[in-house]
Amino acid sequence: KTIVLLPGDGVGPEVVREARGALERVAELFGHSFAFSEHAIGGIAIDEHDDPLPQATLDACSKADAVLLGAVGGPKWDDPKRKVRPEQGLLGLRRGLGLFANLRPVRVHPKLAAASPLKTDKVEGVDILFVRELTGGLYFGQPRLREKLESGKVRAVDTLEYTDEEVRRVVHLAFRLAEPRKKRVTSVDKANVLESSRLWREVATEVGAEFKHVALEHQLVDSCAMRLITAARSFDVVVTENMFGDILTDEAAVLAGSLGLLPSASLGEGTRGVYEPIHGSAPDIAGKDIANPTGTILSAAMLLRHSLGLTREAEAVERAVDEVLSSGARTADIPGAGDALSTRAFGERVR
Amino acid sequence: KTIVLLPGDGVGPEVVREARGALERVAELFGHSFAFSEHAIGGIAIDEHDDPLPQATLDACSKADAVLLGAVGGPKWDDPKRKVRPEQGLLGLRRGLGLFANLRPVRVHPKLAAASPLKTDKVEGVDILFVRELTGGLYFGQPRLREKLESGKVRAVDTLEYTDEEVRRVVHLAFRLAEPRKKRVTSVDKANVLESSRLWREVATEVGAEFKHVALEHQLVDSCAMRLITAARSFDVVVTENMFGDILTDEAAVLAGSLGLLPSASLGEGTRGVYEPIHGSAPDIAGKDIANPTGTILSAAMLLRHSLGLTREAEAVERAVDEVLSSGARTADIPGAGDALSTRAFGERVR
Ligand SMILES: CC(C)[C@H](C(=O)O)[C@@H](O)C(=O)O
Ligand SMILES: CC(C)[C@H](C(=O)O)[C@@H](O)C(=O)O
Repeated sequence: KTIVLLPGDGVGPEVVREARGALERVAELFGHSFAFSEHAIGGIAIDEHDDPLPQATLDACSKADAVLLGAVGGPKWDDPKRKVRPEQGLLGLRRGLGLFANLRPVRVHPKLAAASPLKTDKVEGVDILFVRELTGGLYFGQPRLREKLESGKVRAVDTLEYTDEEVRRVVHLAFRLAEPRKKRVTSVDKANVLESSRLWREVATEVGAEFKHVALEHQLVDSCAMRLITAARSFDVVVTENMFGDILTDEAAVLAGSLGLLPSASLGEGTRGVYEPIHGSAPDIAGKDIANPTGTILSAAMLLRHSLGLTREAEAVERAVDEVLSSGARTADIPGAGDALSTRAFGERVR
Repeated sequence: KTIVLLPGDGVGPEVVREARGALERVAELFGHSFAFSEHAIGGIAIDEHDDPLPQATLDACSKADAVLLGAVGGPKWDDPKRKVRPEQGLLGLRRGLGLFANLRPVRVHPKLAAASPLKTDKVEGVDILFVRELTGGLYFGQPRLREKLESGKVRAVDTLEYTDEEVRRVVHLAFRLAEPRKKRVTSVDKANVLESSRLWREVATEVGAEFKHVALEHQLVDSCAMRLITAARSFDVVVTENMFGDILTDEAAVLAGSLGLLPSASLGEGTRGVYEPIHGSAPDIAGKDIANPTGTILSAAMLLRHSLGLTREAEAVERAVDEVLSSGARTADIPGAGDALSTRAFGERVR
C-alpha cells in the first residue's frame, strides 16, 4: 500500500511525522507494509517549485492508495493579491482527485468535555458527522472574476452552482454513512433565498426517499449555526454545500475543546482519499514541538478505514488515542492542560 | 413623525403590539406625537393580496419616517417550490428602500449571562455590533436561475457579486459606528478563496486608512465562526457580506441566551430604516401570548435613535428594558425562567 505524505506548511510537518509514526506502528503490529513518499504542497511548494501543487505532487497522489496532508498556508504567502497562493494547492488537489465529499466527525471526548467553551451538559455526548460538498458550490463555480465597469466601478463575482448530480452523490454518501449510525440526516441549505439551495433540497428529498430507514430533515444554514450551539447533541449526520460546510464545521469544531483534536477525510468515487487534521498551519507555534498531533493521527485512522479497508487497525489507533486522552495526557492547546506534553511525546504515547 | 407597522406573520403581531405600546408611552412621557399605520407583508400579504410585498405597503414605507416589522414566514407558505414566498416581501422591502446595512447589536445582559449555552466567563461583557451588508452579495447577484442542460442534468446558479462602491458604503458605516465604541472593526471575508472577498478586503483596507483612530483587522469567515464562541469579547464592530452576516449573526445571537432579546436596524443612505427583532415568526408559539417582546421593543429604541433622532427617548426605552430584566422578570424563552411573564405582561412592565 502506498501512502503519499504532504506535510505542507507551519505545524504540518510536525503533526504528519507523528501520524506517520502511528501508521508505522500499525504496520509493525499487524504485519502490513506501507510505502511512504513525501511531496510538496502549499507555501513550501511555491517557494521550491513556484507552484502550490506541482505536477509531480498531483501525479504521486493520483497513483497512491491514500494521501495524508498536514496543513497549507502562512503569513509569508498571505497577501490575497498574490497570483499564486498556498490554498490553491489544497483546492487543486481536492478538485484534481475528484474528492467531492469532506467528512468531518466531531465527537466530544468525555474527559475533554470540560475543556469546551460551552457548558458541559451542552457538549457531553455530541457525535456529529459532517459531510461537506468539496468540489462544487461557491468554491469552484464559474464565472469568478473581477472587472472594471464602464462607470469606473470595480465588480467582483463568484458563482454558487450545482448540478443535481453533484448534489445527489454527496447526499447519497451522507445517507450511507448515516445507516450504521443514528440514522438521521440533516440537510442544510438556504432554500428560502437561494436557487441552488432549492435544487439541493429537492434532490436531498429524492435521495431521502430511497433510504426508508434513515430520517431526513432540512434546516436553514442560519438556524443550523444556532442549533450547533444550543442543541449539538440533536445532530447525527449533517450534509451541506461547500461554503456552508466550511463555516459550520469550523464552528462545530470548537465544541470539542480544541481544533487540534479533529480529523477529516476527503473522498471521491473510489477508495482513494486525502486525510488531514482540520486545524490550519498555525504558524505562531510552528517548529516548537507543541502542536497537538491528535487530529492528524485520527486522520490516519480514517485513512486506514476508508482507503485501505483496515477496520481493526483503524480502531486500534482510535482506541490508543482515546486511552492516551483518558489517561489525562494533554498537549498545550487544551484549556487547563497544566503539565503539557510535546508533540513528539504525545505521539510516542499513542504508539 | 410617521411610523409604519408591519406585524407580519406568526408572533409578529404580538411583539409589534408591545413595541408600539412602548413608543406610545414615550410619546406620552416626552410630549411627542407619532402617527402609526399598519400594512401587510409576508405570508399574510400573500393570503390577502397575493403578493408578499403589496405596492401599497412599499409606498407607505417609502413615505414613512421609519418602519417597525414583526416577522415573516411560516409552515403554511414554506414549500420552497412556491413561486411566491413570504421572505420575498422582506427581501423586496430591503432592496426597495435601499437598506444596505443591517445592524445587529449582541450585548449580553449581566443578569442573563447564566442563561447562555456558553460558560458564563465566555459571554460576560460581550458587546458586539454586527454590520451585515443587506442588499448585495449572494442574496441578489445575477444570474440566479435553474436550467436543464443538454446532458439532461439540472443546474442551479446563484451569484455572489459586489462592486467596490457597495462594499465601501457599508464598511464606511461600520467604521463610523466603531468611533464612539471601542474603535475596532473586524472585516470578515473568505479572501483565500473568493474573488469578491479579495475585493472586499482591499476596499476595507482603503476605508480603514481614512479612519486613523479605528483599528481594522481582517478575519476569514470560518475562523470568525470559531472565535465567536471561543473569544466573543474580543470583537467590537464586525462587518461582512450578506450571507456570511446571516450565518454569523444568528450564531452570535445564541450567546445572549435567547433570540427573543435581540433587535436589529436596517439602514440606507438617509435616516429612514426598518427595525425588527432578529427572531423569526416562531409559528409554534404564535397566538399564545408567550413570545418575548424584548427584541422588538429594543428595535423600537433603535428606531427612535436612528430614524427619529430621539436619543434620550431611545435610552429611556433601553433603560426600562434593562431594569425589567434586572428585576428578574422573564418570558418563557429564557432558560430557567421559572414563573414566566406573558408577552403582554412583560410589555406592560416596560411601559
Ligand atoms: C484553506 C482553505 C482553502 C480551506 C477551505 O476553505 O476549504 C480550509 O478552510 C478548510 O476548511 O479545509
Ligand atoms: C427570512 C430570511 C430571508 C432572512 C435573511 O436570510 O436575511 C432572515 O434569516 C434574516 O436574517 O433576516
